[in-house]
Amino acid sequence: MDTQEDIERLIEAMARLPGLGPRSARRAVLHLLKRRDDRLLPLAQLMDKVGREVRECLNCGNVAAGDICAICAADKRGNGQICVVEDVADLWAMERANVFQGRYHVLGGTLSPLDDVGPEDLRIPRLRDRVATEGVEEIILALNATVDGQTTAHYVARELEPTGVAITGLAQGVPVGGELDYMDDGTLRAALSSRRKY
Amino acid sequence: MDTQEDIERLIEAMARLPGLGPRSARRAVLHLLKRRDDRLLPLAQLMDKVGREVRECLNCGNVAAGDICAICAADKRGNGQICVVEDVADLWAMERANVFQGRYHVLGGTLSPLDDVGPEDLRIPRLRDRVATEGVEEIILALNATVDGQTTAHYVARELEPTGVAITGLAQGVPVGGELDYMDDGTLRAALSSRRKY
Ligand SMILES: [Zn+2]
Ligand SMILES: [Zn+2]
Repeated sequence: MDTQEDIERLIEAMARLPGLGPRSARRAVLHLLKRRDDRLLPLAQLMDKVGREVRECLNCGNVAAGDICAICAADKRGNGQICVVEDVADLWAMERANVFQGRYHVLGGTLSPLDDVGPEDLRIPRLRDRVATEGVEEIILALNATVDGQTTAHYVARELEPTGVAITGLAQGVPVGGELDYMDDGTLRAALSSRRKY
Repeated sequence: MDTQEDIERLIEAMARLPGLGPRSARRAVLHLLKRRDDRLLPLAQLMDKVGREVRECLNCGNVAAGDICAICAADKRGNGQICVVEDVADLWAMERANVFQGRYHVLGGTLSPLDDVGPEDLRIPRLRDRVATEGVEEIILALNATVDGQTTAHYVARELEPTGVAITGLAQGVPVGGELDYMDDGTLRAALSSRRKY
């Protein structure tokens, strides 16, 4: 039976999504099968539409409808600040927080010599060009506070040093609402060493 | 920006799937955006194909490519046994365990006066017809070992009593409160092989 095979293939494809496994993929597909007209077919259509529309911004690496993303295209976002993030997910997190008014640069990962990920793979040359041409005054390194993220931040900072642009990084410390008892040693050490006047 | 809105809508649609929330839906969509050609577009196509193909078997309620599902259409499955399940997920669980050679009847839920779910909503009349016309010798009630499942099993058993067909239920072995879809193959096999007269 072809349909049963297609359903199996659909479950397998869903199970490959991060956060889903075979069991949750089955449940999701069954849910969709029961709501074919108002869920399954619209979801298929939306995926197809997004898949056909979506591009990578040639300037910053964000998702875009055309060559340039909405943030790079918005004049008011050109305030001289560029926030460098690893991933589009991090850009979305910053935008959700609604705390940053400048532009972004999405590296697309972290440096990893073992995995053959070098500076060209991470849009670092493009970042150097932007600093030279976009009137950038400050580069904010908002990379993850992981070893890879911080190694990459160091590399980017060193690369941009000759341009004379101001380079800053997100503060490390105890998250708002965080309880000391739940923090790891590294977080406590960072929070203590960059303590501020009360 | 249209694309960003479409992406938001896609995330919302994914977040409505059981087992996913806003956060995992975002991660899944980002994953798909990064693998547009080998993941996103094929998944969209597969969903659309399944959505257009899939029907409900007019005989048993299983998913089907046409009017009648593959199990109802297979001569060798007509062995005089019908296994009554609540849901297609339970039918899949039985088929995965590969312990039952007969046909199924998918009720599509459990009786629930509070939610206005009556016998007609559960394909119970259709089950009575099948007993009368399909040469059925045994009805195996494989409903979930929940209060609703067992209430429904009692009702079905009482409805079928006048037909004189043998009515059995899965053996204890399925833990009280457990759901078929969560059981391992061995448990299902044991429960089926020591089924008891109802
Ligand atoms: Zn951009
Ligand atoms: Zn059928």
